[in-house]
Amino acid sequence: MNLEHALTTTIDVNGTPFAYREAGIKGGVSIILLHHLTAVLDDWDPAVVNGLAASHHVIAFDNRGVGRSGGTTPTSVQEMARDAIAFIRALGLSKVDLLGFSLGGFIAQVIAQEEPDLVRKLIIAGSGPAGGEGISNMGAVLQDGVAKAAASGKHPKHFLFFTQTDHGQAAANAFLARLSMRTEDRDAAISNESIHAQLTAIHAWGQGDPSKLSEIHHPVLVANGDDDVMAPTINSFELARRLPNAQLSIFPDASHGGIFQYHAAFLQQALDFFA
Amino acid sequence: MNLEHALTTTIDVNGTPFAYREAGIKGGVSIILLHHLTAVLDDWDPAVVNGLAASHHVIAFDNRGVGRSGGTTPTSVQEMARDAIAFIRALGLSKVDLLGFSLGGFIAQVIAQEEPDLVRKLIIAGSGPAGGEGISNMGAVLQDGVAKAAASGKHPKHFLFFTQTDHGQAAANAFLARLSMRTEDRDAAISNESIHAQLTAIHAWGQGDPSKLSEIHHPVLVANGDDDVMAPTINSFELARRLPNAQLSIFPDASHGGIFQYHAAFLQQALDFFA
Repeated sequence: MNLEHALTTTIDVNGTPFAYREAGIKGGVSIILLHHLTAVLDDWDPAVVNGLAASHHVIAFDNRGVGRSGGTTPTSVQEMARDAIAFIRALGLSKVDLLGFSLGGFIAQVIAQEEPDLVRKLIIAGSGPAGGEGISNMGAVLQDGVAKAAASGKHPKHFLFFTQTDHGQAAANAFLARLSMRTEDRDAAISNESIHAQLTAIHAWGQGDPSKLSEIHHPVLVANGDDDVMAPTINSFELARRLPNAQLSIFPDASHGGIFQYHAAFLQQALDFFA
Repeated sequence: MNLEHALTTTIDVNGTPFAYREAGIKGGVSIILLHHLTAVLDDWDPAVVNGLAASHHVIAFDNRGVGRSGGTTPTSVQEMARDAIAFIRALGLSKVDLLGFSLGGFIAQVIAQEEPDLVRKLIIAGSGPAGGEGISNMGAVLQDGVAKAAASGKHPKHFLFFTQTDHGQAAANAFLARLSMRTEDRDAAISNESIHAQLTAIHAWGQGDPSKLSEIHHPVLVANGDDDVMAPTINSFELARRLPNAQLSIFPDASHGGIFQYHAAFLQQALDFFA
């Protein structure tokens, strides 16, 4: 079952319905996808998710207050991590792999710190440590991207996720086309209130303390483009440097969406890593 | 034909005999291996080279003044690159892939800058840009490693190529065992005069100007351990940042010899890259 054809289901998490979709083959360690600022279920790239789902069980979900999930989006990464942990436990899972992208990468770090036994391996993409350079600026970068998109008639992700080269912009078009492949049962858009709460959480994360990274002893694959405008790439290097057991992969002529632009190469690395 | 069983041959390069060994399957683009400070032919890890040779033609050589090659080792990376280019041309090759390790990575950069049409793709491992942080210090680090080795009865590479963790030291033992697999027709050791010339070249490289990196438009794979004591890992990040078309791969709990420690993972990346 490919993710873009998967039904959207809800599960009760401490009284709140959480929306999720699952794809792939059950049996091994499930991969939980943790998503970015503004993202709902439909924003996961099928090229990456279906590639993982060819040999793994993969679960995408809307965290509290996002998309079709109920409740109010919290204003800290720590609370988002607690909600994600509660969702994972509500599914009856006791050991998972995490793929956290951007804000989802922050959440993945906190899950691994707070519930180390719940996690086997993590991929942290387009992300950075607490206190990372330029992380607090993500809201301003988002605004700038939205303004450029409005002025040019393009999608904000043309500016925020991809480089401005021909190569980068062609990848943006291909990525957006993949996201539009799902035509039925699409998710609800995120509310402005939830975006605002996420930005508050991201700003606080950018002011945080990275020292807890040394506590994450799990295998970690850190991945990003070499020119990320949202979570500057130096943060991926910093993650790999501070994490005791991290592998780093950086893609050329690529921005925040580097793992989607280089989906085939990233997928191979991810499959090797999760093997 | 595996490299550790390959005959050592010489070829005349502008009047000087250059020693080399070749392995693998002729036909495609040959991979030229460019080696590190102090290294001779026997210092290439069979786990990496034979893995490449399973599907590529691979050539290792002693540059001028090194091992069994004649002449006097020059005191600049630029001259070493000119010698390497002359060797490649003497073999009758007009387009090659390069795998440069440490000093060899410096040489690979200059070859790509000076003779861009001669090069298809480059891997630069355990290396850094001209002017890179701590590169000029490599001689002092080497001395320190040799002193520690003498005091402990270990090989200097236990200190210089691998981390001091149990994992790193076990990898050092496995690496050194692989290097000793070749028992016949071993290369001559490098002379102290050649090491001194190489250190002069490395020191000058460490004082150099990295701006020419933007001229290298070839696909580049930059690889290293996350804790390289000889060519500090930040230099690999800097290479990937400055090179227009570079992919970066950093291995955990690994030092200068990261690509040898993670030979299986590195080999997969290298084969994908050279495909």
